[in-house]
Amino acid sequence: MAAAIKLNGFPCKAAITADDFFFAGLKNAGNTNNPAGSNVTAANVQSFPGVNTLAVSMARIDYAPGGQNPPHTHPRATEIIFVTQGILEVGFITTANKLFTKTVTVGDVFVFPRGLVHFQQNRGRGPASIIAGFNSQLQGTQVIATTLFAAAPPVPSDVLAKAFRIDNSQVDAIKAKFM
Amino acid sequence: MAAAIKLNGFPCKAAITADDFFFAGLKNAGNTNNPAGSNVTAANVQSFPGVNTLAVSMARIDYAPGGQNPPHTHPRATEIIFVTQGILEVGFITTANKLFTKTVTVGDVFVFPRGLVHFQQNRGRGPASIIAGFNSQLQGTQVIATTLFAAAPPVPSDVLAKAFRIDNSQVDAIKAKFM
Amino acid sequence: MAAAIKLNGFPCKAAITADDFFFAGLKNAGNTNNPAGSNVTAANVQSFPGVNTLAVSMARIDYAPGGQNPPHTHPRATEIIFVTQGILEVGFITTANKLFTKTVTVGDVFVFPRGLVHFQQNRGRGPASIIAGFNSQLQGTQVIATTLFAAAPPVPSDVLAKAFRIDNSQVDAIKAKFM
Amino acid sequence: MAAAIKLNGFPCKAAITADDFFFAGLKNAGNTNNPAGSNVTAANVQSFPGVNTLAVSMARIDYAPGGQNPPHTHPRATEIIFVTQGILEVGFITTANKLFTKTVTVGDVFVFPRGLVHFQQNRGRGPASIIAGFNSQLQGTQVIATTLFAAAPPVPSDVLAKAFRIDNSQVDAIKAKFM
Amino acid sequence: MAAAIKLNGFPCKAAITADDFFFAGLKNAGNTNNPAGSNVTAANVQSFPGVNTLAVSMARIDYAPGGQNPPHTHPRATEIIFVTQGILEVGFITTANKLFTKTVTVGDVFVFPRGLVHFQQNRGRGPASIIAGFNSQLQGTQVIATTLFAAAPPVPSDVLAKAFRIDNSQVDAIKAKFM
Amino acid sequence: MAAAIKLNGFPCKAAITADDFFFAGLKNAGNTNNPAGSNVTAANVQSFPGVNTLAVSMARIDYAPGGQNPPHTHPRATEIIFVTQGILEVGFITTANKLFTKTVTVGDVFVFPRGLVHFQQNRGRGPASIIAGFNSQLQGTQVIATTLFAAAPPVPSDVLAKAFRIDNSQVDAIKAKFM
Repeated sequence: MAAAIKLNGFPCKAAITADDFFFAGLKNAGNTNNPAGSNVTAANVQSFPGVNTLAVSMARIDYAPGGQNPPHTHPRATEIIFVTQGILEVGFITTANKLFTKTVTVGDVFVFPRGLVHFQQNRGRGPASIIAGFNSQLQGTQVIATTLFAAAPPVPSDVLAKAFRIDNSQVDAIKAKFM
Repeated sequence: MAAAIKLNGFPCKAAITADDFFFAGLKNAGNTNNPAGSNVTAANVQSFPGVNTLAVSMARIDYAPGGQNPPHTHPRATEIIFVTQGILEVGFITTANKLFTKTVTVGDVFVFPRGLVHFQQNRGRGPASIIAGFNSQLQGTQVIATTLFAAAPPVPSDVLAKAFRIDNSQVDAIKAKFM
Repeated sequence: MAAAIKLNGFPCKAAITADDFFFAGLKNAGNTNNPAGSNVTAANVQSFPGVNTLAVSMARIDYAPGGQNPPHTHPRATEIIFVTQGILEVGFITTANKLFTKTVTVGDVFVFPRGLVHFQQNRGRGPASIIAGFNSQLQGTQVIATTLFAAAPPVPSDVLAKAFRIDNSQVDAIKAKFM
Repeated sequence: MAAAIKLNGFPCKAAITADDFFFAGLKNAGNTNNPAGSNVTAANVQSFPGVNTLAVSMARIDYAPGGQNPPHTHPRATEIIFVTQGILEVGFITTANKLFTKTVTVGDVFVFPRGLVHFQQNRGRGPASIIAGFNSQLQGTQVIATTLFAAAPPVPSDVLAKAFRIDNSQVDAIKAKFM
Repeated sequence: MAAAIKLNGFPCKAAITADDFFFAGLKNAGNTNNPAGSNVTAANVQSFPGVNTLAVSMARIDYAPGGQNPPHTHPRATEIIFVTQGILEVGFITTANKLFTKTVTVGDVFVFPRGLVHFQQNRGRGPASIIAGFNSQLQGTQVIATTLFAAAPPVPSDVLAKAFRIDNSQVDAIKAKFM
Repeated sequence: MAAAIKLNGFPCKAAITADDFFFAGLKNAGNTNNPAGSNVTAANVQSFPGVNTLAVSMARIDYAPGGQNPPHTHPRATEIIFVTQGILEVGFITTANKLFTKTVTVGDVFVFPRGLVHFQQNRGRGPASIIAGFNSQLQGTQVIATTLFAAAPPVPSDVLAKAFRIDNSQVDAIKAKFM
């Protein structure tokens, strides 16, 4: 049984074919009908086992008008993007707390260094989409707002209140939005 | 001139002595009289050039009563801590959005995997302090609240409002606290 | 002077801006009016210095009808591609001498493991193009036919004749095509 | 059964909790009633499986008055120490055969580069102790005297005699001390 | 059963002996009675499991008079050679398409950087042989002519014809030589 | 001036030739007329700058009758050897203090894992020699006896006395042999 043989924690198939190195899952736009107005479709080792040990993956990100890929980090990968549709404001913040931001459009490339908080905000009238390349088979993602306000079990409200310099009730109000 | 010769972006001295591998800067508690009620004193390549190319560094973190090291990430290092004083609630959130949290006291060890959001909150009556080891000469730090609400130039308020599901005026109120 | 300060052999700028992480050079199709009928436009550290130390790069490859990106290797990178236009036959050969090949079209993803000989052949009636992600700031490329038959100084003809089991005059005829 | 699933040679648990990232084993001083007058308590992947794949570990080392952590190497890690009690003479020897040595006391930090022979000698009147951070989940240790004079099977005496420029009977006398 | 326990895809033995780190398979010259007039005998993880995780391997290469190790690449290793017999013309081609070539004889050392096409051609009257060191437990090899003209299934002839600027019948003639 | 441009701390030449990848210094046996009765001739980045960034090096080791390469470590490399002349007893000690030893002769291969103490002792009647491959451009070497008893400044005698369980006068007698 294939599942019984693993390399690096993922299946190591004895009989591989070209289809193992092929992935059709980025063909169509993801469903952006959600609070962020965006959708990340990943071609990483979880959806596309053929990249196991190859240290690359891809993703397609779609944005409704007004949608955003909210501030987030990838603990294990630098990300390089190519805009395939629309107009986006993109940016990342350095460890010296400088924001580097740029408005990008079809054909533009931008890079987000490993582990730094970054975001993309649709600034056009129509939908937008990008293709992202990662130098990891599994980049990992922490969407900051969700990580802090919607973890299970929850991050203690007083920890967040002190961190954001708001009061507990404000923290709880934000938490309620993510339930 | 030492500054003229660099390796890996940091000074590479021609004449080294034992003092280059020694650092006395963690001897005393840092000043915790600040909004977070904590202070990080780093022994990394910026303060302690002798760790250049050695892929390790240390830090001492002090906490006033009620103080916290707010939720933050280190893009380039896993952190392992040893509690030297007091009682702390520590935790990190995974990429699957699970919080792993524990109350630790003198002599306890806890580990925060590379790149994940984590925090320490003083839960004792008196001051607390820890020694942290990192597997990088320069771990880098992004304190989440500061990164998002106090970057220069500022992260656009509408981006943050949508991300945290609050309105722009609430974002601006938080930003004002960090000025 | 920026050129005087280097990190990793490439410029390390003292004053960076968002433009350093931005590259517009992949916006337009490259000129495919050449013997291969294809054009590789690179967004790597040579054209896009901002990826220095970030271990990623991108390229846009355009194919005229009938064009090909001939069999080649990247010594320093795995490549993952996303098809943006047309129909391509793509493939790589393993160290066990197996060919893995697939016909891919718009939105498909395929991966070429580090260092292995691979190619893309336009099999559609119109032009084709792809976006490639690499896990290196400078993937390096060896186009096999050019490497062997058009190096300077030339690879000795008898070495090539024996390798391809042809005679010296046939080698020289191929060499003449690449002058 | 958890033990049946391994990643990197160590258990990979399906259900992890905060306790997996917590270790209480460094709380108390180790027993220094032994010939070296010291004790190393390790928080590495063998005692603390939660550091598996995280590339860090810690240790607590205690020294009786007059005790030492004898000259030894860690094949897989650089070590950075923080003195928590007492006065120690610490040192390492470079590949150019230079000794870098320093007397350190509470709160001091010193670093021992990966793979180099190093030692700590208690030079105070009372006990001493340190916390060590390593950039490996399993640093490995070779205590030189034990490695050479107490291996099983034994290193041939004539090899050691020639190496240390003593005679075989002197080698055998040292070996006898380690039985 | 040893085969049931694997680390890194290769057997991880519970009871190891000195013989696991020993390999006698390079003692004798390989059989060079083949079209290339050469033979590569490998001491890598497939023949010599003891190098698993150690990131080194060796090979012995023997050349009949007139024999060659044809142009090939190692996707995973730099190679450094020591000539033990005879006179060889050795060379590699860079990604800038420059050939670096040298005639080497007994006792000479030459290095072929990771992933670049290289070859060795016997230029003496008698047999030749070398010892090669690799910085990988499994260097991998792609002999260019075999990779392109003898893969299974075959690389399409029109792809090769366009790449080498010859016609399909010439491609098929070369393919026939490798059957 | 070439010396003014460095990459990785070593010269990075603007104009390279095949000679940069060639080294003739291992052709002849080194002078073994010394206390160890052996000689290590290195082809590493210090003598052979062309291996800079390539992560390989070689060495030739010659042994007079009765000579030895005394117990030593390489902090930065695994070593794989090929015997070119004579009969040697070779061995290394693990971190579990097990000695793995073997008598090897012409054509045999043996591997010494990174960082572990190892030795080679000529056990034949005539001279012996080996070729060693390393997976580092600069393996580094610590000959244990020299490191401990002949460092400058000296390792304190009481540290060594306690470590080897001998008295200070015996330590000083050994030190005197290395002056």
